[in-house]
Amino acid sequence: MAESGLPGFRPFSDIVPTMIRIAVLGATGYTALELLKILSRHPQADVVAVTTRQTGRPPITEIHPALVGQFDLAAENLTPAEAGERADFAFCALPHAASMEAVPQLLDAGCRVVDLSADYRLSDPGVYEQWYGHVHTDPTRLSSTVYGLPELYADRIGSADLVANPGCYTSASILGLAPLLQAGAIEPDGIVIDAKSGISGAGRTPRVGTLFAECNESVTAYGIGSHRHTPEIEQVLSDVAGTPVRVTFTPHLMPMDRGILCTMYPRLTASADAESLLEVFRRFYRNQPFIRVVDHIPATKHVAHTNFCDITVRMNRDRPVVVVAIDNLIKGASGVAVQNFNLMIGAEQTTAL
Amino acid sequence: MAESGLPGFRPFSDIVPTMIRIAVLGATGYTALELLKILSRHPQADVVAVTTRQTGRPPITEIHPALVGQFDLAAENLTPAEAGERADFAFCALPHAASMEAVPQLLDAGCRVVDLSADYRLSDPGVYEQWYGHVHTDPTRLSSTVYGLPELYADRIGSADLVANPGCYTSASILGLAPLLQAGAIEPDGIVIDAKSGISGAGRTPRVGTLFAECNESVTAYGIGSHRHTPEIEQVLSDVAGTPVRVTFTPHLMPMDRGILCTMYPRLTASADAESLLEVFRRFYRNQPFIRVVDHIPATKHVAHTNFCDITVRMNRDRPVVVVAIDNLIKGASGVAVQNFNLMIGAEQTTAL
Amino acid sequence: MAESGLPGFRPFSDIVPTMIRIAVLGATGYTALELLKILSRHPQADVVAVTTRQTGRPPITEIHPALVGQFDLAAENLTPAEAGERADFAFCALPHAASMEAVPQLLDAGCRVVDLSADYRLSDPGVYEQWYGHVHTDPTRLSSTVYGLPELYADRIGSADLVANPGCYTSASILGLAPLLQAGAIEPDGIVIDAKSGISGAGRTPRVGTLFAECNESVTAYGIGSHRHTPEIEQVLSDVAGTPVRVTFTPHLMPMDRGILCTMYPRLTASADAESLLEVFRRFYRNQPFIRVVDHIPATKHVAHTNFCDITVRMNRDRPVVVVAIDNLIKGASGVAVQNFNLMIGAEQTTAL
Amino acid sequence: MAESGLPGFRPFSDIVPTMIRIAVLGATGYTALELLKILSRHPQADVVAVTTRQTGRPPITEIHPALVGQFDLAAENLTPAEAGERADFAFCALPHAASMEAVPQLLDAGCRVVDLSADYRLSDPGVYEQWYGHVHTDPTRLSSTVYGLPELYADRIGSADLVANPGCYTSASILGLAPLLQAGAIEPDGIVIDAKSGISGAGRTPRVGTLFAECNESVTAYGIGSHRHTPEIEQVLSDVAGTPVRVTFTPHLMPMDRGILCTMYPRLTASADAESLLEVFRRFYRNQPFIRVVDHIPATKHVAHTNFCDITVRMNRDRPVVVVAIDNLIKGASGVAVQNFNLMIGAEQTTAL
Repeated sequence: MAESGLPGFRPFSDIVPTMIRIAVLGATGYTALELLKILSRHPQADVVAVTTRQTGRPPITEIHPALVGQFDLAAENLTPAEAGERADFAFCALPHAASMEAVPQLLDAGCRVVDLSADYRLSDPGVYEQWYGHVHTDPTRLSSTVYGLPELYADRIGSADLVANPGCYTSASILGLAPLLQAGAIEPDGIVIDAKSGISGAGRTPRVGTLFAECNESVTAYGIGSHRHTPEIEQVLSDVAGTPVRVTFTPHLMPMDRGILCTMYPRLTASADAESLLEVFRRFYRNQPFIRVVDHIPATKHVAHTNFCDITVRMNRDRPVVVVAIDNLIKGASGVAVQNFNLMIGAEQTTAL
Repeated sequence: MAESGLPGFRPFSDIVPTMIRIAVLGATGYTALELLKILSRHPQADVVAVTTRQTGRPPITEIHPALVGQFDLAAENLTPAEAGERADFAFCALPHAASMEAVPQLLDAGCRVVDLSADYRLSDPGVYEQWYGHVHTDPTRLSSTVYGLPELYADRIGSADLVANPGCYTSASILGLAPLLQAGAIEPDGIVIDAKSGISGAGRTPRVGTLFAECNESVTAYGIGSHRHTPEIEQVLSDVAGTPVRVTFTPHLMPMDRGILCTMYPRLTASADAESLLEVFRRFYRNQPFIRVVDHIPATKHVAHTNFCDITVRMNRDRPVVVVAIDNLIKGASGVAVQNFNLMIGAEQTTAL
Repeated sequence: MAESGLPGFRPFSDIVPTMIRIAVLGATGYTALELLKILSRHPQADVVAVTTRQTGRPPITEIHPALVGQFDLAAENLTPAEAGERADFAFCALPHAASMEAVPQLLDAGCRVVDLSADYRLSDPGVYEQWYGHVHTDPTRLSSTVYGLPELYADRIGSADLVANPGCYTSASILGLAPLLQAGAIEPDGIVIDAKSGISGAGRTPRVGTLFAECNESVTAYGIGSHRHTPEIEQVLSDVAGTPVRVTFTPHLMPMDRGILCTMYPRLTASADAESLLEVFRRFYRNQPFIRVVDHIPATKHVAHTNFCDITVRMNRDRPVVVVAIDNLIKGASGVAVQNFNLMIGAEQTTAL
Repeated sequence: MAESGLPGFRPFSDIVPTMIRIAVLGATGYTALELLKILSRHPQADVVAVTTRQTGRPPITEIHPALVGQFDLAAENLTPAEAGERADFAFCALPHAASMEAVPQLLDAGCRVVDLSADYRLSDPGVYEQWYGHVHTDPTRLSSTVYGLPELYADRIGSADLVANPGCYTSASILGLAPLLQAGAIEPDGIVIDAKSGISGAGRTPRVGTLFAECNESVTAYGIGSHRHTPEIEQVLSDVAGTPVRVTFTPHLMPMDRGILCTMYPRLTASADAESLLEVFRRFYRNQPFIRVVDHIPATKHVAHTNFCDITVRMNRDRPVVVVAIDNLIKGASGVAVQNFNLMIGAEQTTAL
């Protein structure tokens, strides 16, 4: 059973399953909805607080009618400290910038935290400021925060008090490139990542750009050269490769609710065929319950509403093409958050997933 | 500038085609976009002003990138009077309540007007107030405004200065019931209208309810018992039937951009078969270029991006089921607006449609 | 614990949970896929055979790539008798006509059966022949087959050897009307049922009419007056009402994968308001884990991928409008099949759902 | 009847507009539908024959209900020679392999032809055989056939008897790369083309893979390393560049009807910024009515149902990213076919488009 980063901290109990009192901060968005759905079937999850900036304590089922009959909770306008006092564990689904205000309070209140925002993903506050356009207010914690990609960092996640849940594009990109980089099979620079996401990734705040009548029957690229998942991908892949990795990352919006497909175009360091590259993937992920290295080309529908990540690689003449599919809200957000939670409380990684 | 409503009225000119200077008020929405697309291929349309509440005179192509290369116009924050001074003709695509402020100014400036809002559709200001929740500020004009459904009122539209363009659900419902009511083939009460619309009908103002991730993969009803097209449908059908008509109207949102399908369940006054009812429709619409009475069941895709209205009727035991399909943005809004424009300027009804 | 219809037959074991060996006949369609997904998380389900008419024993994961890592099974071209010998329990997801050939063999082999086809739903072989156009080859079993709608017939399902799983439209329609009919609140005739379904309901056999490019951005009605769920709805509702019930049922195809919304227009027998009608629903379903009587208008998205059925009723003047939402593949097919399975093996109704 | 390829050739007539008798071979697919829609508004098009392999002379409006009221024609099971005898001009929308049987007969019958299949696009019969898996039966005509991309080859199209209409992915890819290659601004090898298409591109023949319930809510790649548009792209770009060009082309299916977005990742030959690259595009296309070089990132919705091709280029660090959007059925097929037709008959390129 995992021990936390603090001396003497014993996570919750020796007897399994202990119920864990959980707070979800920022309960109105799509990641919170998926998180609550997963937690509703988790045998150790006791959701005791869900927060919102709305006043009037609306029932969570009014915000998310899909949850009728599953949660009898009001969404409350709590401070992070108030939420933290009620709970043992917090999922922080706040926007970036808000999260770095809340997380220290949650930790101070004794909560362990999975932060779903971008605030604790980058280890260098300077890089954060460069890409997010404002100063990080909790910079000293960045270097010690564990990056919550279980397929790479499970051993450190288990004992962490604060885990930075990865970005959705980030998880898909890293999971498709890390094995090849670690094996030295591909060049660390000039990697093209062409990523396609469903619209739920853009959040639930009303904007013209995410209206149905704008997105439906349409595909477009956005954030060329400026998308904030770029430094996150490069940071983790550089860590894996042991050398600076540079990617050309272009996200696209697809007319669908959920799902990310990353099509990635690295260059080989030495001649290889598809089968040998697939074998690199199979070995790297041989004990990973959520990674499926497949021979066919993955489709996002194959992984929709699951925590699976499907990966294949094909050769196009001398260039490998890696294709990765995940559900952006599950493996790209709330599913991996619960996977991290499971590791942190000593449960089976697959519980409720 | 034209005079109307007088015997011998000649629309604009003896020589065809005369260019008509056109103002479009409220240029940011979907109906304005479709209207501008149609006007871009109209040989007599010279769009001289498009208005918006936004400041800074954004190019119309920034608001609607689909129009690049077709209009070299800025959207201006003009008063109705200013717009009216530049133009001979105005399409008013403002929200209701705003329209009844603008229309008198446009008429005073000498413009003829097609108003796409709901403000001039109901002839009784009391009914307007009951359904829209506020007093009508231009009540005296209501009784003289021509209702812009060309298949019923073409003769009055041609000479009108102000035409109230019908609602989208309204057009589809009326076109599917008017012939049967006029023929006395169906009872005037207890008519169920189950209407299905694409999301563009809900407009371009950002709201949670019309986000892609809310509407996609979902169907729901709304406005049960309270949708404002109800009194409009009943007013026109009562006029046609010569007796009060009552409908049970329920609109639904479909996960698609555009299209309305109305499935309507009247009761027969006397025994009849489908063929005899189809014959009622064929006779009623025999000279109408945009009505297609068909034997198959219409689909909204058959009429998408066109001004067509497809209609059929089938018997389900002793009950007729009328199915009508239109494009809500074209035959349900901007197409019929141009059809009215054509009638008003003496052009072929089908010009640019 | 339930006993079966055969003397001395004890279902499987006194000790819970016993593993049940399961065969799924007709494994290539969408209902089979959803069924297998549910069974993969069922603690008592041991899927030992999946059948197909294809030869070559393709892995089930080749037919349904979503199942990679969840089933290590080949789809086999087995006779019903062969499948029945391997299993204790069979889900029969064959097309109608094929099912009535298979079911007797499965029962003879000692299997208990949930039949997802239409073959055993109608109790009168004459009605079957009239609507399906061919003679029923197993007519004597019809009158004794239990209709698998647990909210009405749970007590008879538990001990049955053969349960006829309801049609998708049927479940939604019945669940929204049965309480009002039983209470005598609505007239038994002239009920309009306007039903909207996602495309998965049309099956996985390739046809032009269900291609993406035909269905997307389109809504249409079909089967007016001829849809085979009509007699099924009327049979069950007549049983509930104790008097013949007649409906005008019109199904529609919606551009979405899954979900059924039924909007239903009965007429009241006596004056009532929405709240009193809601109360009829709440009482009728007070112990039902999957029925959610709600105040808001249901959307299919609220119940997608769940076994929930959301119901509300509103008044439109003097006419009640009942709105019901289910997932056609879950509560409309495979979810209720497992709900029936649970009742038959003495498990909690909600297991794996 | 016209002669072509000779100096002084005058297409069809001195007097404009002459009506051209047109045959459409292969009338059941989506390209034929769009072609007929365009031709219905073309002042010189007189469609005299539409062919199908179906027997029984079904009305074209039964095959395509959208055409009701626009064509009063039966689809006939004609030989190419029979079709050619009735017409002056043929659009050949047959599958590849069938087209190379039909085209010689059409030409022999005196028709000029736009062939929408792949059969005459590749100039080298050996390359054809390698990618299409069968021998070309009309190899001698390949080298003299004009490739129908008007933005590159308008001068040769005008006088041609046979024009090979480009593939949909091909047009989008070439239009986004040709200017940069001709200017020497990008390297001719290692160009990544990540292409996304709507499902209509996969045709109207029923297959599991293009069913709504398979494609909706899903994105996937296909044909990695094997898609037949690859040699076509390379042939034309090599011609433009004057040096062999090699691309890594990966097509993807998007859950939408229509539209192609190509995101392309070349490498610069020398340092450049986005504005200078945009200027290369603007100059190259300065007289092209259908190419819109834009500053914003194109979306397929901006060009849907039009013959426009929207292009932009952005820098991502030192790598240019070119984004191109077209409607696959219009600019990618039937629109450019009519654009070629217009050039061939001496009409304005934009007529009916």
